[in-house]
This record gives sequence, structure tokens and C-alpha cells, in this order.
Amino acid sequence: MSPINRSNPHHRIVTLPHRSQVLAENPLSDPAERALPVYLPPGYEDNPARRYPVIWALAPFTSWGERFFNLQAWDENIVQRMERLVASGAAAPAILAFPDCFTRFGGSQYVNSPAVGRYEDYICAELVPLLDERFRTLAGREHRGVMGYSSGGYGALMLAMRRPDLFSAAACHSGDMLFEFCYWPDIPGAVRALERAGGLAAFLAEIDEIARPRELGRDWFSALNIIAMSACYSPDPASPHGFDLPFDEHTGAIREEVWACWQAYDPVRVAPHHLEALRSLRALYFDCGSRDEHNLFLGARCLHQALTQHGISHTFEEFDGGHQDINWRYDVSLPLLTHALNPQEG
Amino acid sequence: MSPINRSNPHHRIVTLPHRSQVLAENPLSDPAERALPVYLPPGYEDNPARRYPVIWALAPFTSWGERFFNLQAWDENIVQRMERLVASGAAAPAILAFPDCFTRFGGSQYVNSPAVGRYEDYICAELVPLLDERFRTLAGREHRGVMGYSSGGYGALMLAMRRPDLFSAAACHSGDMLFEFCYWPDIPGAVRALERAGGLAAFLAEIDEIARPRELGRDWFSALNIIAMSACYSPDPASPHGFDLPFDEHTGAIREEVWACWQAYDPVRVAPHHLEALRSLRALYFDCGSRDEHNLFLGARCLHQALTQHGISHTFEEFDGGHQDINWRYDVSLPLLTHALNPQEG
Amino acid sequence: MSPINRSNPHHRIVTLPHRSQVLAENPLSDPAERALPVYLPPGYEDNPARRYPVIWALAPFTSWGERFFNLQAWDENIVQRMERLVASGAAAPAILAFPDCFTRFGGSQYVNSPAVGRYEDYICAELVPLLDERFRTLAGREHRGVMGYSSGGYGALMLAMRRPDLFSAAACHSGDMLFEFCYWPDIPGAVRALERAGGLAAFLAEIDEIARPRELGRDWFSALNIIAMSACYSPDPASPHGFDLPFDEHTGAIREEVWACWQAYDPVRVAPHHLEALRSLRALYFDCGSRDEHNLFLGARCLHQALTQHGISHTFEEFDGGHQDINWRYDVSLPLLTHALNPQEG
Amino acid sequence: MSPINRSNPHHRIVTLPHRSQVLAENPLSDPAERALPVYLPPGYEDNPARRYPVIWALAPFTSWGERFFNLQAWDENIVQRMERLVASGAAAPAILAFPDCFTRFGGSQYVNSPAVGRYEDYICAELVPLLDERFRTLAGREHRGVMGYSSGGYGALMLAMRRPDLFSAAACHSGDMLFEFCYWPDIPGAVRALERAGGLAAFLAEIDEIARPRELGRDWFSALNIIAMSACYSPDPASPHGFDLPFDEHTGAIREEVWACWQAYDPVRVAPHHLEALRSLRALYFDCGSRDEHNLFLGARCLHQALTQHGISHTFEEFDGGHQDINWRYDVSLPLLTHALNPQEG
Repeated sequence: MSPINRSNPHHRIVTLPHRSQVLAENPLSDPAERALPVYLPPGYEDNPARRYPVIWALAPFTSWGERFFNLQAWDENIVQRMERLVASGAAAPAILAFPDCFTRFGGSQYVNSPAVGRYEDYICAELVPLLDERFRTLAGREHRGVMGYSSGGYGALMLAMRRPDLFSAAACHSGDMLFEFCYWPDIPGAVRALERAGGLAAFLAEIDEIARPRELGRDWFSALNIIAMSACYSPDPASPHGFDLPFDEHTGAIREEVWACWQAYDPVRVAPHHLEALRSLRALYFDCGSRDEHNLFLGARCLHQALTQHGISHTFEEFDGGHQDINWRYDVSLPLLTHALNPQEG
Repeated sequence: MSPINRSNPHHRIVTLPHRSQVLAENPLSDPAERALPVYLPPGYEDNPARRYPVIWALAPFTSWGERFFNLQAWDENIVQRMERLVASGAAAPAILAFPDCFTRFGGSQYVNSPAVGRYEDYICAELVPLLDERFRTLAGREHRGVMGYSSGGYGALMLAMRRPDLFSAAACHSGDMLFEFCYWPDIPGAVRALERAGGLAAFLAEIDEIARPRELGRDWFSALNIIAMSACYSPDPASPHGFDLPFDEHTGAIREEVWACWQAYDPVRVAPHHLEALRSLRALYFDCGSRDEHNLFLGARCLHQALTQHGISHTFEEFDGGHQDINWRYDVSLPLLTHALNPQEG
Repeated sequence: MSPINRSNPHHRIVTLPHRSQVLAENPLSDPAERALPVYLPPGYEDNPARRYPVIWALAPFTSWGERFFNLQAWDENIVQRMERLVASGAAAPAILAFPDCFTRFGGSQYVNSPAVGRYEDYICAELVPLLDERFRTLAGREHRGVMGYSSGGYGALMLAMRRPDLFSAAACHSGDMLFEFCYWPDIPGAVRALERAGGLAAFLAEIDEIARPRELGRDWFSALNIIAMSACYSPDPASPHGFDLPFDEHTGAIREEVWACWQAYDPVRVAPHHLEALRSLRALYFDCGSRDEHNLFLGARCLHQALTQHGISHTFEEFDGGHQDINWRYDVSLPLLTHALNPQEG
Repeated sequence: MSPINRSNPHHRIVTLPHRSQVLAENPLSDPAERALPVYLPPGYEDNPARRYPVIWALAPFTSWGERFFNLQAWDENIVQRMERLVASGAAAPAILAFPDCFTRFGGSQYVNSPAVGRYEDYICAELVPLLDERFRTLAGREHRGVMGYSSGGYGALMLAMRRPDLFSAAACHSGDMLFEFCYWPDIPGAVRALERAGGLAAFLAEIDEIARPRELGRDWFSALNIIAMSACYSPDPASPHGFDLPFDEHTGAIREEVWACWQAYDPVRVAPHHLEALRSLRALYFDCGSRDEHNLFLGARCLHQALTQHGISHTFEEFDGGHQDINWRYDVSLPLLTHALNPQEG
């Protein structure tokens, strides 16, 4: 055996370029021309009458759909993994879709925000119909799932709660939650980076000129992350940049009224308001590494506790690992989701 | 010049062993036999009529008075530094006292706590009189100051606010404040370490057996720190161990009612309640490094802002550096304090 | 501007699957079925009479040709970069080829080794003719270059020296050289990892089972690296595994006779034996970051010094950076190589 | 039990200030006025006829005798440790001496060097007689041992081999040896630091101005270490600064002829030339952590192998740990040495 899977990493990928109506004139002037890569299951061409469940796979912060096809040694990309899982019978055949919700700030959290764009709508109102029109999907909610990692896991969980009309299964890997533990650690570095740049306006002006982000160091990334989340969770049309930071730029002191806006997007706080949607899911899976560098295992435990208290059926796995290199976890979620969404099963 | 100062690092140190009344029967069974090292200024023996101001120097967490005399290359211990500063005229002669407020949990924060012991009283009601009795101090508040680093800086600030009857000058180097930024980062690791130990009771039982703490790793230290602070800030006689943790042991979720107890000890929140005491100070100095690993520069900025708003005279210096290796900052605070407390000046 | 280049990252990529004759029956039982991705320049289809220079792009250790197409934010993959450089006129149109010389041990260093396989021959005797046959290349050495990063940079330099019949231009980014500084730091960790595994045989037996290499830690990677290099530089048919380690497995002590074999592959030591080939190059470029974590800047300086002494024309750039994230350097090498190989120029 | 030992950390310490003849006019202009702290065993005053064995304890690089008395939590200083070991009967009573062999460059390796000073002679020809004259030592070699940590461990081993007339027992904790692994890793950083300073002369000129060495970073320390070792191992009166670096300042390339000088000081290479001395030892102990950051465990294994081959009796312990925080190992060496040197035993 070779330590790399040399099967075609782009096998059965069809890309749908399109001009988004929803993203036209988005506030960050991000391009409305996007492409949706779609993975078609083995046998798709040979069975012209067969329709397939769909799983929407959401990328993490600073990433987008295409990056699911990246390769590294001793690992598989998602195509190679899915092919193997289906071939072995572990997973059921399904269509996978990989939307591009990247923005100038590094991501959209898959929400609608007047400061970023309507990315929830982009997926739900634009891409879902596009996919259902162009491919032989099973278009009902019973056969549509959503999954993701990190910010993509956050998106999967939120879409499952907010849009039960569209989704009936979700898998969230190391998703953002319990925001005080996952985002506050970025504040001190963000204060420094904003200061170094000469303030928020100056920092934002420089974003487009960034060439070597890793050379900018951790503080820069902390600032970027906090800014992107602010634009998603605490947009404010009255603010110069269209959003409010949840802390004082100079002292870091939490602005409670802004923080309350953030909390309204925190899955562990949001879940109790979506019990009916959660209860309606055919599959709900989430996991996290107990050494997660963003402390997300704490949020996952909180969510597990809350769901259990409310009698919501779900699967939670805490594994020994950190936030990175979690592709191997898809060996759990892809079988679970595809079988739950499979018309013969479920 | 040699890179080390070879002058006697224990010059003019007299140690007062004593059996503390205040610490007798303390809840952690820490020894009541303690020693108070005292540094006497040059000329003390030759001028039997002269009295001197006193500065109480408070050690950081996991430290105690004696450790001020530790040596390292390219640095001075506090004795060597003070001798040089006085010899050059930068600082005025003063007596320095170095109390031992160490506990089984690594420290006392210099507060009175039913879960730890009455360390504020130990200093204020026992050591201050002892020193004034045994040495030719200037015993009024006008001539008594307090300083410290990290948890010692915290103690200095708190004693200056709470005991204006005793102290009229304070210097706080990189002191604990704005608790959500300085302590919350320890919670995720503490959750892991408590879990690994088998819970809080098991963790506490092992503390006395610790032989190589650095081998235990960062999570262990996070747990120790959070436990010690809990015992100081949220003691609870009804709790099995005499104190409450401000978070859920399993999920890390903040316990708001316990956290409120902590906030009542946070200098940036406490200061507005001690404006009169603060206004009465002859000198108030604090500083912090802008790369402080415990994010204390944020608290320092908050305090600076609050004091400025209330018209409290003070000196704040933010310097380029981290939390460690701040001895060089005493070159600022020792002159400032000794001159403020000096009877000829002030 | 968006921080990501959304142009098709696989634009104009044609892949040539083939069954290698050279790699058939290779000693590590790596697959002989490989694929050669080829990038065709803009206009290739529209100008059926035009022929193009070729650049062979060599991947680093633990990588292979396909990974040049990986994506990350605030960066371009090599296709996107080349398209931009050609569009702007900075680079001349050229065909790029991305061979897969990965092995069970993570790489081949692009050499022929009885312990690994004949990877130099695979490129030179098999892939070069295959490409020249299948595409409208300019097939002479004057129009064929080779470039790479890290182990790929090493390969580029070695092929330029050893095969002047095939290559007339080379670019080496952060390439392996001055072996005592780039490989010795791996020995202590390799000793530990081999010991933990239960010896070399046990370590080798486990390689195929590796699932999460990053979880194995730095020592494991050090062992893998040293083993792969041993198999390339000091093959030994008389040895149980077909190669000799250059150090004692238990004490780490250097085995001088094995080390001498390695030195015979060290570019800084090999260069003086290939002066004629080096002098014949139309372009020779190399660079390195002065914070390179594998200390390769030292080797690059040595090489620069040696080439200068021998009057070999070359370009050497030392930049402020480490070993990772060097894609931006291709903005220097691609223009330089493509123009040197361009029939209208050169 | 308290996690700190509050027994007097300077108990039974008597300090002998003196003006060294040997160090007068030393080439680095380091002060000749030094102090020798001496620890006297319990009962010393009460038994005026009793004489005691002596152990010379050598400090690591950038340290000196006084620093053995530093304190830290969950640990003991050497006085507290020895008092406990003697009280329990684990160790036999002995006099301990803690010489100051610090230099402008951070240390002397306890050798005689025309570029640094005659520190071997300072100990052997000056301090040993001074101690024997001032205290009731057992002055024969049978009762005199030497121990140390890191560079102090190196010194202990070298003195035991070179001066069997004076020492009959040695303990070396994590001592410098197998120089290519312990010192070469410093070369790349040293090249950078020397370059940044503007060359060796500029670097040396700045040494006396150093105020915050840790802020200077790892490269600065690498340069300091390599310079100090060069001054000890490859002094050269013909060189501008009195010593030669073992590498090219610009390329890092090893200067073989200088390196050969270093090897003549490497314990693993020196040992075979001192078999008679080694055989005459009453006790020879060395240990090292298998995660030693300076790779010293490799040298220790080499030495163990060489001594075993030559039939030299010794004790070697490899423990799970790094280079720092090894005080707990003195619980092994102090009993072993004191009993070997004890007149009633041995």
C-alpha cells in the first residue's frame, strides 16, 4: 500500500459556474461570480432514472468549497474518501456540494448579514434550487443534509436549526460554539494588531494587500477572525464599517450590548429556541477533539448536555486530538449522514 | 564590567522568624511558622536615631518573599538593585519587607479568605506591627508603601485601596486585573486537568505529592491557578472544599453567580469603590508589558482609563515586553516609591 | 479585490496516466501506475504550429506533483500564478510538468537508488520523452528547465548538474544542501522514534499503517525523513532493509563511512565536480529564507560562495522568511526560467 | 505538608571572599575578587575533631555557585535537599563547595584557556587548598568529589579525568558531550546573531551592555554559547579576539582544523585517554533525560558504551525528562557521592 491515495482527487466533480443574484452588490464587494463544485456518486451516469440524496459540505474560516479537494500525504481528500466509503458499503451513494462562501474577511459563517452578505440565502435560496435543477437530486428535506468543519460545522448546525424546511440531517465537526471560550482568546491579539495597523479602518484597508498572511503572525489572524465574526454576528448599519466590535479597541473591555448580539448566534444558546427543528432531524452528529486549540470541546459538551436535557436524539463523540487534521472524522459522519438520508433506509 | 553583580545578594537582610497568630489553624493547614526577611538600608546601623520609610514587597503566585533574593545572570536581585539605586541617588533609603504568603495552593492573593487564610490580616495586623516594633521604621501611613509583581502587584493595588490607613503609596507590576482576560484562558486546561485527575477532590489530594510540577504541563498549572483563585475569590463554607469554581467542571460553562464573586475582587471593578483611598495616595504606579501572556495589559489600560476618568493621579507605563523578566521595571518603581515616602520629600 | 484568486485552479491541466517501465518492480513496491499532470500555456490550442519550452516542477518531501494545485487563502496555486504572470507579460508561455515521485518513505529525492527506485531515470528516460511525444514541446535542452522547492529544489539542482544533456535552466527554492546542518538535527528525534517503535524493522513495518502522521509528533517525522534520505543517499544491498543509516541507532554517533556516501549527494560538495554542466546553464537561480527551520540558508550561502569562486553565473536571493509558505518566490523563478528558455530570447 | 521547604535555604553556608591569584589579569578582565560559598554539615561545630569529605559542586553555563541556593516552589535548593538527605540517612555528612567560575562570556567550562582564564587551576590550585586550610576537610583525593549539571557536569567529568590526584568521585548530570550534537544546533542561530550585530567584534563589544538577555532571543543565546565554548576549546592567541570559531561566520561551514581542537575537549573522545584515572574512581555517576533539548542523552549513551567497553565501573541513568528542572536527580548523586567518599565506608 502506498501512503497516498492516488485515485483521481477530482473524480466525478462537476463544477457549476454561476452569477449569484443573492450576492450581487454584497457589501464587501466580493465577486458574485462563483462556482459550485459538485461530486456525483459512482453510477450516476449509468442509472439515469436514479435520484440521490445531497449533502452540503461547508468549508472552515479562510476556506471555501474547492479546498475540500486539496491533497496531503497519508490522507485522502473528500472525493477519495467518499469513493472508498461508498465502494466498501460504509456510506450510501450521495451527491456532495461544496459552496464557496468565502469573503474579503475570510468567511461568512453561512449567515445573512448586512455587513457581509446574505450567505444563508445564497445557499438556501439560490444554490439548493440550482443543484436540484441541474442534477438528479432527491429534492425533499428528508434527503438533504449539511455538514462542515470548524466554521463550516457551525454553519451546518445553524442551518439545520434555522432551515428544517430544507435540511433533515447535520454533522458538525469541531464547530464554533460557547463563544466566550472560542472567540475571547482572540481579543488581546486583535487589540494589538488593530493598534499596530493604526486602527480598524487602517486594518481593513490593508486586507486586500495581504500577500503573506502567515508572516503577519498570530495577532493579525486574531484580528481578522474577530472582525469577520463581528461583521457576521454584530452588523450595525450605523457603524462606520457596518459592524461593531464586541470589545473596546483600546482596552479590550467587553461591550455587553454587542456581546449580547453575538450570543444570539451561539449554537449552545440558540439550540433551546429550535427544539422542534432539532427534534425533526433524522440525524444529528457532532464531535470535537479534547485538545481543540479553540476550546471547542467545551461548547460541544455544553451542547451535548443541553440536547440531552431536552431529549433531542443525537450522537456526540469527543476524540483525542486538536482542531487540525480532522479529515479522518468524516469516516464517521459520511456514513451516518448518507444512510440517514438514503430513501431505502432512514 | 561583569554581566553579573557580585555584590552580596543578601546584604543587610535580617530575617524575623515568628509564629503567626493570624495564620494559626488556617484552613489549608499551611505552617504558621514563617519568616519575614527585611532589608535594612545602608547607614541603618550608623545612624541609630534615624527612622526609615518601609516598602512591603509582595511576591507573585507560586512564590514568596525569599525568592526576591534569587539570582540570575545579567540581572540583579532586589537587594543588589536597591543598593545600586540608593548609592546612585536614584532611590531614597528605605526598609524593604518580603512577607511569605505562600499556601498549599501556590498563593493567597494577599486577601482574607475562609478557604485559604487571613493573609491580608497577616500582613496588616501582624507583620506591619512586628516590623514597626523591631526596626526603626517611620510607622505612619505617609511612609509606608506596598509593591509587587503579578499576584503581588494585585496585592499591592488591593491593599492600597482597602487599607489607606496603612499605606500611602503603591506600585503594581503586571498585576492581575480584568479577570475575564487574565483567568478565563486557564479554564479549558483546568477542565482537562481536573478530569485527568479524576475530579477536584482527587486533584486537591495530589497537590501535596507534587514533585516535578513543570513535568505536569500547562493544564495542571491552569488548574492550580484557577483553584487558588477560587479559594481566594469565591470561598464557600457550604462547598465540600470550602470554595466554588466559577465554571462547570465538565463543560467549562461560567457560573454567573460565582463569577460575580470574583468580579468583586477585580481591581478594575473595585477601584471606583475606593476613590477616596486612591485619591489619598502619595504615589500610585502601575505598568505592564504589551505582550503580557496573561493579557494583563488590557486590565492595566482599563484601570488607567478609569482612574483618569475619576481624576485620580497616577503613573501608568506600558512597555514592550511579556509577563516574565520584569525586574528591570523596579528601576522605575523603587525610586518613585522611596521618594514619595521619604519624610524630606513627599 | 478578493483575497483569493478564484480563477480555475486546474485550468489547462491535462493529465497523462501511464504505467511506468522504470518504476516497475521498484524495491518499495510503490505503484508503477502514475499520472503526470501537465499545464498547457494559454493559446496552446489556438496555435497548433507553436512549440513551447518545458519546465519540470518537482515537489518537496512528502509531496507529489498534484499537490502543486492545492489552494489556500491569500495565495495562488501554481496554475493561477502562471496564468497571471503570463497574462501580465512577466513570464513567457511555457508547458509545466508535475511528476509524481512520491514513495512509501515520503519521497525519492529524484535520484536513482537500489533501495527506493530509479526516479532520476523515471523523469529523464521516461517522462521527458513521454511529454515530448504527447505535446508540442521544444524538445532540446535549450528549452527545458527544472525547478522545485525543498527536496524538489534539491532535485532541480542535481538534475541540472547531472543531466546537462536534458536541462539548461534550474531554479532551486530552499533546497536541501550542506547536509550536516539540514539533516543532523533530525538524528536525536529519529533515535527516540526508532527506539519507541522497537527498532528500524518495526518502524518500517508500521509506515503503511500510518493514518494521522501529525499526531505522531516531530520525532516520528524526523525518523521518516532520515530513513527516506538514507534509502536515497546510502543504499546498501547487503543491509537488511537495503540501506544504511548514517548514525548508530542507539547512540546517534555518526557512521563516517555512511556519512561519506551522503556527502557524495550534497549539492555544495557535488557542484565542483559539475562545473562544465553548471557553466552551460542558461539560467541558474536559487534562494532561501534566512530563518529557514532546516538551516538551508547556510547551504545556499556555501553554494553561492562556491559558484562565485568558480566563476559560475547564477542568481542567489536570500529573503526574510522561513522554510514554509514560499510560493511567492515563484514570482521570481517562473519569469526567470521561462524567459531563459524562450526561443525568441535566451 | 507545604509544597515548599521553608527550612533556611542558606543554613550552614559560610562564604569565603578572596582575591584570586590565578584569575588576576585574566584575559576577559573578569573580577579576581570572588567568593566561595561553603556548606558545612550538621554537627560541624559540635564535633571539632571531626573531618569531612568535600564535594565541589559546579554550576551550569550562565550560572555560578551562589545560584545553587535559588528557590522555587515544589522544589528544594541544594542546602535544603542535603539537610533532608543527611537527616534521613540517605546521604552521609559532607562539606559542599560552590565555586564562582562565571565569566563575561557566561562561563569557563572549568578549563584553563588563554582566551578566558585558568579556571581549572583556579579550582584545583587555589580553591581546593583554600578550603582545606579553612575548614576541617578530609584533604586526600579519597574524600574529595566533584559534581555538576550541564556545563557543570562537563566540568565534573573532565576534572575527574584530568585531576585524579585531587578527585576520586564524580557525578555528571546532563553534561555537555558528543559535541556535534550538543553544539552544532547553535551554529545557524549564531550566524544570524553575529550578522545582526555586525560581526564578532561588534557582538563582543555589546556583551557588557546586555540588560535583558531573554528579550534578545534564542539566536543571541546561541551566539553567546558558541563564543564561550570557542574561547574555552579553541583559544588562539593569533586570532583578534584570542579564539577561533569552529565555523565560517557567513556560511556556517565547519572549520575542520578548529573543530579538531573542540573534539580534544569532548568527554566521549577524551575518556579513552584517561582510562587509568577513570579506573581509579571510587564512584562515577552520570545521567541524562531522554528528551534533553541539547541532545545530551546521545553523548551520555556514547560515554556509557565506551566506559563499558573499557571495563570502567560506573552508573548511568537515563530518565524521562528534558534538560531543565533536574534538581531531583541530586537525590541520586548526593547519596552516591557522599557514601563513596565517606571514610567509614568507601
